[in-house]
Amino acid sequence: MSDEATLRALAMKVRNWGRWGPDDEIGTLNYITPDTIAAAGRLVTTGKVFALGIPLDRQGPQSGTRQRFNPIHTMFRDGGDAPRTPAQVAEMQGYGGSDDWIVMPLQCATQWDSLAHIFYEGQMYNGYDATLVTSSGAAKNSIDKTRDKIVGRGVLLDVARHKGVRALEPGYAITVADLEATAAAARVTVQRGDLLLIRTGHMSRYLDKNDWRHFDLDPFPGVSVHTTAWLTLGEIFFLEELATDCATDGRYAFLLVAPPLPVKRAVGTPVNPYALK
Amino acid sequence: MSDEATLRALAMKVRNWGRWGPDDEIGTLNYITPDTIAAAGRLVTTGKVFALGIPLDRQGPQSGTRQRFNPIHTMFRDGGDAPRTPAQVAEMQGYGGSDDWIVMPLQCATQWDSLAHIFYEGQMYNGYDATLVTSSGAAKNSIDKTRDKIVGRGVLLDVARHKGVRALEPGYAITVADLEATAAAARVTVQRGDLLLIRTGHMSRYLDKNDWRHFDLDPFPGVSVHTTAWLTLGEIFFLEELATDCATDGRYAFLLVAPPLPVKRAVGTPVNPYALK
Amino acid sequence: MSDEATLRALAMKVRNWGRWGPDDEIGTLNYITPDTIAAAGRLVTTGKVFALGIPLDRQGPQSGTRQRFNPIHTMFRDGGDAPRTPAQVAEMQGYGGSDDWIVMPLQCATQWDSLAHIFYEGQMYNGYDATLVTSSGAAKNSIDKTRDKIVGRGVLLDVARHKGVRALEPGYAITVADLEATAAAARVTVQRGDLLLIRTGHMSRYLDKNDWRHFDLDPFPGVSVHTTAWLTLGEIFFLEELATDCATDGRYAFLLVAPPLPVKRAVGTPVNPYALK
Amino acid sequence: MSDEATLRALAMKVRNWGRWGPDDEIGTLNYITPDTIAAAGRLVTTGKVFALGIPLDRQGPQSGTRQRFNPIHTMFRDGGDAPRTPAQVAEMQGYGGSDDWIVMPLQCATQWDSLAHIFYEGQMYNGYDATLVTSSGAAKNSIDKTRDKIVGRGVLLDVARHKGVRALEPGYAITVADLEATAAAARVTVQRGDLLLIRTGHMSRYLDKNDWRHFDLDPFPGVSVHTTAWLTLGEIFFLEELATDCATDGRYAFLLVAPPLPVKRAVGTPVNPYALK
Repeated sequence: MSDEATLRALAMKVRNWGRWGPDDEIGTLNYITPDTIAAAGRLVTTGKVFALGIPLDRQGPQSGTRQRFNPIHTMFRDGGDAPRTPAQVAEMQGYGGSDDWIVMPLQCATQWDSLAHIFYEGQMYNGYDATLVTSSGAAKNSIDKTRDKIVGRGVLLDVARHKGVRALEPGYAITVADLEATAAAARVTVQRGDLLLIRTGHMSRYLDKNDWRHFDLDPFPGVSVHTTAWLTLGEIFFLEELATDCATDGRYAFLLVAPPLPVKRAVGTPVNPYALK
Repeated sequence: MSDEATLRALAMKVRNWGRWGPDDEIGTLNYITPDTIAAAGRLVTTGKVFALGIPLDRQGPQSGTRQRFNPIHTMFRDGGDAPRTPAQVAEMQGYGGSDDWIVMPLQCATQWDSLAHIFYEGQMYNGYDATLVTSSGAAKNSIDKTRDKIVGRGVLLDVARHKGVRALEPGYAITVADLEATAAAARVTVQRGDLLLIRTGHMSRYLDKNDWRHFDLDPFPGVSVHTTAWLTLGEIFFLEELATDCATDGRYAFLLVAPPLPVKRAVGTPVNPYALK
Repeated sequence: MSDEATLRALAMKVRNWGRWGPDDEIGTLNYITPDTIAAAGRLVTTGKVFALGIPLDRQGPQSGTRQRFNPIHTMFRDGGDAPRTPAQVAEMQGYGGSDDWIVMPLQCATQWDSLAHIFYEGQMYNGYDATLVTSSGAAKNSIDKTRDKIVGRGVLLDVARHKGVRALEPGYAITVADLEATAAAARVTVQRGDLLLIRTGHMSRYLDKNDWRHFDLDPFPGVSVHTTAWLTLGEIFFLEELATDCATDGRYAFLLVAPPLPVKRAVGTPVNPYALK
Repeated sequence: MSDEATLRALAMKVRNWGRWGPDDEIGTLNYITPDTIAAAGRLVTTGKVFALGIPLDRQGPQSGTRQRFNPIHTMFRDGGDAPRTPAQVAEMQGYGGSDDWIVMPLQCATQWDSLAHIFYEGQMYNGYDATLVTSSGAAKNSIDKTRDKIVGRGVLLDVARHKGVRALEPGYAITVADLEATAAAARVTVQRGDLLLIRTGHMSRYLDKNDWRHFDLDPFPGVSVHTTAWLTLGEIFFLEELATDCATDGRYAFLLVAPPLPVKRAVGTPVNPYALK
């Protein structure tokens, strides 16, 4: 088959359209159940917390040469606006405050994408038409449909460490065999409903130089199309500290709690996932 | 004493400045330890999830008459930008996508405030000068200092339900006695390091009419200054479903996981806390 | 004919589609020529300037209940960020500065709309399909096509004053006869290429109370569909001072200079038009 | 004298503080009078229009490595939101529309700076303290104070062309002698109240390669501190077409109309100045 035909055949094979009925908008998150959550809760034994969200600021990974830019944060009120004169101080009984705001692409940093983020042949997950996503947002498959859904057993597959490298080469396409070997070495069995975190080490290159500006311009290693049956829809997770800890204690499974911001009609959300062990 | 003198005396009594050293920026979150987190993890037994964040959209609680406005969400790319002509489709191999972004005050919906949010007599927590918060953000006490800190035992004190009302009256000032009686009836003992959720029922008024626009203009019930020793720094939590569940099973303690967005130099963050039982 | 049929017939009659060729994107602005501009320049005799843009701030005319909100302006750098310590001052040689930014709908205040702003039966001016306006902007009829086009003879038709009222009634539909009578009384003949300013006095109601918040919720007087042959595409002009001056000196024609911001692919622009007499 | 002492002495000599009274907020714009405007109006003889504002889009001159970013423009409503079903079409009587918005630094493109934009030794123009500029904007010297003030005789001093180069070298500091020689060759006498446009040709370098991204990172030629008595406060003007025309007809003076957006408390404004000849 041609490349396109192969790709198309694969897409048809792995897609879950219709599996949870014609009205479903959350896909494989349906595999997470109270039982899998309760079981994941039992993995919290030492009280360690790993925050997987990268900092949000102007020095972030986006180059701005495409649409996505780094978060722009600024103040409405600050210390310079605080009461000064005795009259002002008296009026406010000594109190003052600060307020701030942010402008940010929902896909600019550590993120979940919704099932309205990718279209294939004019359709998105479950066969909804791409034109249901307009300037007023996504009428179907928006991220707020997952508002209480993104918690469960997290499993780290540290492919880079398993292969004994600081980071996979730019452009390297992780294979199913890579994932299976990594899981086997970690003595972890990936189960239905798991939230998979696949570490390529690519971010380590940037952390090493303490500057991840323009991270988005670099060809990065990633899962190949043949691993799509395993696919997750998060990106730019900070996995360094978690990975070191897993390598130390040999426990690659944990409770992962990663609540999306329930933005109505959105196709993504920034997130700061917590891995709890 | 005059009112002001009373207030000032109270403020001096409860404040924790210096308790965790002169360089501390997270205050009572220091009370949360691996042990309290591990103990809280054991409260996850049934796998129930309650998401406490309100939806983020233009129909939110802010009136816009003061500085804070409701989130503004829109698209960079949508279904209308997807490939159409055969040539475009071929070039993209059938793929298209959507991207979006948001403009929002960090205090406009369910939120954590940082310890740089409130000034008293020109200073914020731990004695840092208010002028350390400028247009470029908070040099001290910013929210990103708490990036991996906001998880622990959550305790719901459902004052409205305990008093047998749908909602406390506008302007009602909850007393220490109210909190103690509510806790006693719930058979829960508030401990150092707990994340307290105090339910006034005020939001129920708005949910009943299915419109919480201008919620911010209404005088709301809240904790009185005399309860500040108990104080938490979150606001506008959606507690209805959680409260109903607690009343049903009698379990008012749970694992609360509420990761802030790690916005550098920010004085607040939107949040979608998960209560896990 | 039914109302709809009448409306449709009228729309077909007045529309200029194709008049300036199939590729035109600026419509009646084609009537403005170097000759009309030079003639308008000769109207500048006394050096009086009238700025017709309303202030841009949070207290503006938008209620926020629909999509449009008032401008949000804030600082990146301010006096609180200025050098303070002797070392900082020396490094900057005594200099400091401030920077600011704005978030605003392009239709929130005094504005020009582009010919991509209105669709009728799925098309915009000159027959371009409405789907040419996507999340990435207007591929046709965008405002930047007019970047050097909006200057010429301005003519004020002060309908309210002509009718002897402070303001026309809310909902009043100005007729062709109204416009003709107003022009006749002002001894001005409307010509091809004129930029017409039609004063209803509606804004005066708001200026009288010094608060035009929620101006957008009020049914306002305006031109009727039968005057569309005269139509201009600007809104919310501040005409009070200009109107008073015209009534005083009897000169209702002037040089109008109203440069759009050349925002690429935009469907509108804020503007601060100058009427020069 | 040392460099700093020289600079300080010069600053003291040229500054106009107090010249128009202690409450003034517009500085040398006070030199523009109805007489100078009327005289400038007489320069409009051929009806030629030159728009001096650069396009506003994501491909603009800002690199984003400092605070300033290029304008971000997107839609609230577009053709994808237009009525489709017969019922929707009927309800809207065939009409639909589009709306858009922008996020932009006020100093990111062709701009006027207000007199609150620069501080020297903790003060801005007229001796106002820098701390009067806070997160809520500039209490003094804001751009809206100039709302009806920026029109008058414009004079182009095309230094690059006078020196016979495509562009002055990066970093070149234009001298008073350069300005005087350029004016003499152009047979124009700079007068009090003129709005000076000084062309360095620097932008031509970027236009030649059709890409002015990162323009802000380049050391550019500019006026030296010794020319401050001539200083204007605009930047990034597109002067190419105007300069060619002036060289052709030998007329370097024209009516310049450059209305600021009247943003309250702002320290700058985007602008699309019109030069009318």
